[in-house]
Amino acid sequence: MKTVIVGGVAGGMSAATRLRRLDETAEIIVFERGHYVSFANCGLPYYVGGVIRDRANLLLQTPESLASRFRLDVRIDHEVTRIDRESKTVFVRDTLTGAEASESYDRLILAAGATTRSVLAHSDIPVHTLRTVDDVDRITAILDAATGPVSAVVIGAGFIGLEAVENLVLRGVAVTAVEFGPQILGPLDAEMAAPVLDSLRARGVDVRLGTAVTGTSGGRVQLSDETSCAADFLIEATGVRPDTSLAEQAGLRIGESGAIWVDDTQQTSDPSIFAVGDGAEKIDAIDFQPTRIAMAGLANRHGRASADSIAGMPAPAASVFGAAIVGVFGITVAMVGWSEKRLVAEARPHRIVHTHPASHATYYPGAETMSIKLLIDAETDAILGAQIVGGSGVDKRIDILSTAMAGGITASALTRLELAYAPQYASAKDPINQLGYVADNLATGTTRNLQWHELEWALEDGAVVIDVRTRGEFAAGSIPGAVNVPLDDLRERLAELPDAPLVVHCQVGQRGHTAARILSQNGFDVRNLDGGYRTWTAGVSTLTSAPAPASAPASASASASAPAPAPAPASASASASAPAPERIPA
Amino acid sequence: MKTVIVGGVAGGMSAATRLRRLDETAEIIVFERGHYVSFANCGLPYYVGGVIRDRANLLLQTPESLASRFRLDVRIDHEVTRIDRESKTVFVRDTLTGAEASESYDRLILAAGATTRSVLAHSDIPVHTLRTVDDVDRITAILDAATGPVSAVVIGAGFIGLEAVENLVLRGVAVTAVEFGPQILGPLDAEMAAPVLDSLRARGVDVRLGTAVTGTSGGRVQLSDETSCAADFLIEATGVRPDTSLAEQAGLRIGESGAIWVDDTQQTSDPSIFAVGDGAEKIDAIDFQPTRIAMAGLANRHGRASADSIAGMPAPAASVFGAAIVGVFGITVAMVGWSEKRLVAEARPHRIVHTHPASHATYYPGAETMSIKLLIDAETDAILGAQIVGGSGVDKRIDILSTAMAGGITASALTRLELAYAPQYASAKDPINQLGYVADNLATGTTRNLQWHELEWALEDGAVVIDVRTRGEFAAGSIPGAVNVPLDDLRERLAELPDAPLVVHCQVGQRGHTAARILSQNGFDVRNLDGGYRTWTAGVSTLTSAPAPASAPASASASASAPAPAPAPASASASASAPAPERIPA
Repeated sequence: MKTVIVGGVAGGMSAATRLRRLDETAEIIVFERGHYVSFANCGLPYYVGGVIRDRANLLLQTPESLASRFRLDVRIDHEVTRIDRESKTVFVRDTLTGAEASESYDRLILAAGATTRSVLAHSDIPVHTLRTVDDVDRITAILDAATGPVSAVVIGAGFIGLEAVENLVLRGVAVTAVEFGPQILGPLDAEMAAPVLDSLRARGVDVRLGTAVTGTSGGRVQLSDETSCAADFLIEATGVRPDTSLAEQAGLRIGESGAIWVDDTQQTSDPSIFAVGDGAEKIDAIDFQPTRIAMAGLANRHGRASADSIAGMPAPAASVFGAAIVGVFGITVAMVGWSEKRLVAEARPHRIVHTHPASHATYYPGAETMSIKLLIDAETDAILGAQIVGGSGVDKRIDILSTAMAGGITASALTRLELAYAPQYASAKDPINQLGYVADNLATGTTRNLQWHELEWALEDGAVVIDVRTRGEFAAGSIPGAVNVPLDDLRERLAELPDAPLVVHCQVGQRGHTAARILSQNGFDVRNLDGGYRTWTAGVSTLTSAPAPASAPASASASASAPAPAPAPASASASASAPAPERIPA
Repeated sequence: MKTVIVGGVAGGMSAATRLRRLDETAEIIVFERGHYVSFANCGLPYYVGGVIRDRANLLLQTPESLASRFRLDVRIDHEVTRIDRESKTVFVRDTLTGAEASESYDRLILAAGATTRSVLAHSDIPVHTLRTVDDVDRITAILDAATGPVSAVVIGAGFIGLEAVENLVLRGVAVTAVEFGPQILGPLDAEMAAPVLDSLRARGVDVRLGTAVTGTSGGRVQLSDETSCAADFLIEATGVRPDTSLAEQAGLRIGESGAIWVDDTQQTSDPSIFAVGDGAEKIDAIDFQPTRIAMAGLANRHGRASADSIAGMPAPAASVFGAAIVGVFGITVAMVGWSEKRLVAEARPHRIVHTHPASHATYYPGAETMSIKLLIDAETDAILGAQIVGGSGVDKRIDILSTAMAGGITASALTRLELAYAPQYASAKDPINQLGYVADNLATGTTRNLQWHELEWALEDGAVVIDVRTRGEFAAGSIPGAVNVPLDDLRERLAELPDAPLVVHCQVGQRGHTAARILSQNGFDVRNLDGGYRTWTAGVSTLTSAPAPASAPASASASASAPAPAPAPASASASASAPAPERIPA
């Protein structure tokens, strides 16, 4: 059996090595159009930033090492240009010599990944992406050769764009980040991305939201807001699309998502051809519809699965949630599943929980506050998505939630998870357990909450805001029109409260819950402002900082809009300092 | 409705505050025999060590704060001495004045926790535990008053004992740790605890295994090994037992485990009385038998559940896995579920996987190696337990596994977990996914492994050990009698191999797997030594370092024995340096 693999990085190389371990007699040829196989593509930005100092660390394997250990025939600098399915032959061009050749196959695995789309047709400033070793060699050459200050424009402020921004700043580059959408980190909901935007600006990054790059001229980058900025080079990080060129040429079925259609054993519409990685379609685990998710972990997993299929031991692939994480200037941002705006766009009934817990017991030094948003199916209590922004412990909590989603653990049942506790690692009621308690209170009707962007509507309907924080917290910044009744005084001051729907809030939501319980048991119509003052200020900041998107140039990348938010109260103070989260007994 | 709660720390206070939030009109009285409520009991060792500097941080709530916020009637220094179930009355003694009083109840919650058992009937050296604020005040008073070197003996080298050891060493105390069992960290399997023992000794701790404290004399502590050591004080950390005295006096049912029997709503055999926390029985999630597990998280959860029951919204409690974690001198040790020795003791068929992955992508700075042991049900592929020892990322992985267990995710299905990946947080194939791949290979028969303690038996049966590491690794230390055939040479040297059962191994198991696949496809009878040379050396070290337990004095704490290990090969080199784990593409 002769297997040809197109692409020698995550998916292709996982397929090749697994296939060898399963079949010593297989003939396995890997064509890689680039000069490197199995390189650390997710490490590339960090080499630019000098975090990874030794370039050799990016190169995990060579054709020689793969030949001696796995008896693989790896041909770098070879691009597969065409597939002839009839004769089961691929046509290959040596990218160094231009020589053409062909290779027959019994089985073919397409692992060519994704391509970028350029928003600039032509530019008099160098334009790079951050996807290959050659890319980073070119960028580091510019940086190493510079004798004075260097400036750069990064187009796209998603996960990859922000990795580029951070690492350029680490190298002393003056960076303008240009994002066409109304917020950075488009997959997140706006209020969750807000603290990251603050951090970028605090580090001197010039972030332009709702803005497109329209061209370059005289060494300057022209923007859709009629301004221009200096740049020695541009980095395009506007997202990727599946590289389906070979598959389309060969007449393979392309899925609804635009990626190569595969069944759950990675087989394409041609039984002899398999596809894996960023080019192949996945099934979304929330709605079981076809989707495109570009993740190294999925590429590895599906690469291995394609080898299992070829070796005659196919195993159905699981649908995917799309967990992702990025670190930016000491902030960790992670998410899994669907966002609120996606749930709204698809009209899926949901509940929302915002919390701001500490990474570990607050009495032990070093605890950091994180912000968590949990999206819950209003009918089944299933977890539909989560977003976490903070410092230490964010990666742990997103992985716990992703695992809970995979295991079908409901939001309320997060209360039952046994998460290992000692004070330097967690809290006796871990942030994940706390999410479960809030979710359970919502599911049972023990409490009702209100989202930050619903507040304006509630006020229009005559609601009164009761701020149950201390006088000091209230004085440091409050929601316009709010009445301050500290929680510990609430029972004694019930007679003062108006005969109107009440919205209570504290700093993060915990005291607000106790207040809401007191008030509802005393006959008031009350909701707890979800996530408290902290979530509200973050949300409101996105309304004042994000100008309406300019009209889109045809080639600019689109970005989903935020959930229809209420207009910002005119006098909102969004800069109050945030005290530490409330202390949790035990 | 009047509810009386006995005990004002984790379980009792969770019950009290939840009950108030559910019922503004409830009368709630909390009796706490100590002087403090809702204190940070898990933080006490770290206050001794000076890690937590401000004593006020240990005291999370006061009777006054609980009265104003939750309208609780909290009476510290009040010990409940007797329950009269007939008249629904508790009898209470003021521990400061000795005054006696009684209090009626409609519902009673027992949350009195656990007690320690002293192994020393009398001692002329101060003996302390580390369970109350008073305890740490007494210990810190000794340390603060010392004008010269201080020495201490810690009895018991389990989780709590090691926290005491670490924090005393941080304060400059010369510590002897006396453990009656054959290993430290008794709940773990011996080979997993071995690196922690090395670390303790490297930090100067005098660890005595298989040893009991037999008495004190002339300011010295007498040990069962006929030696004695100096000590200014002793700390007893020999484990706790449920405080069932009140329950027994009242004639409540005591469960098979020795803790207070409760149903799944925390109700005792008296429908008006509930029990939670360390004193109450739990149901083990592995065999669904009654068990005793003392954990702050479970105390909080069940305290809250008892309030739900009393408020008329009972929810069945989940069975428990018993996740636990401890940090010792920068090493994190965590476990969940059952150990190998427990599975062996209960004759439960199981598979075992040892791995030694990196905490994150090795090409990104700061990755640390951890050792993972996964216990798998041989019939159902269910995860039965896990142990992890290492640095950063250990807490994350144990929580993912605990969550997977709660969600019924099989060991093989760990491959499918989507764990958020960027190189500073994880690997594209996370250690958890890797466990899944190994488990899947075992479940499908793609590979067979052999445990470190099975090697001697295999050798007696004529097996030959093939070490597939490099010549350099082999030269630095190897298994006696092993033949070195580096993996990359293996295919060319098949003819040299003997016609015998083969055991292959590398450093951590990954190359060994590839070698085993090559060999089995070439007709050899082969097993991969699980966890490689690293696990074998750790396991063998436990045989040479642990003297046979001395005969037990009647009052000493018992400890389960390790799984029947093979005798140590006489010339085993257990000190070879361990290279970094193998590099994972992508």
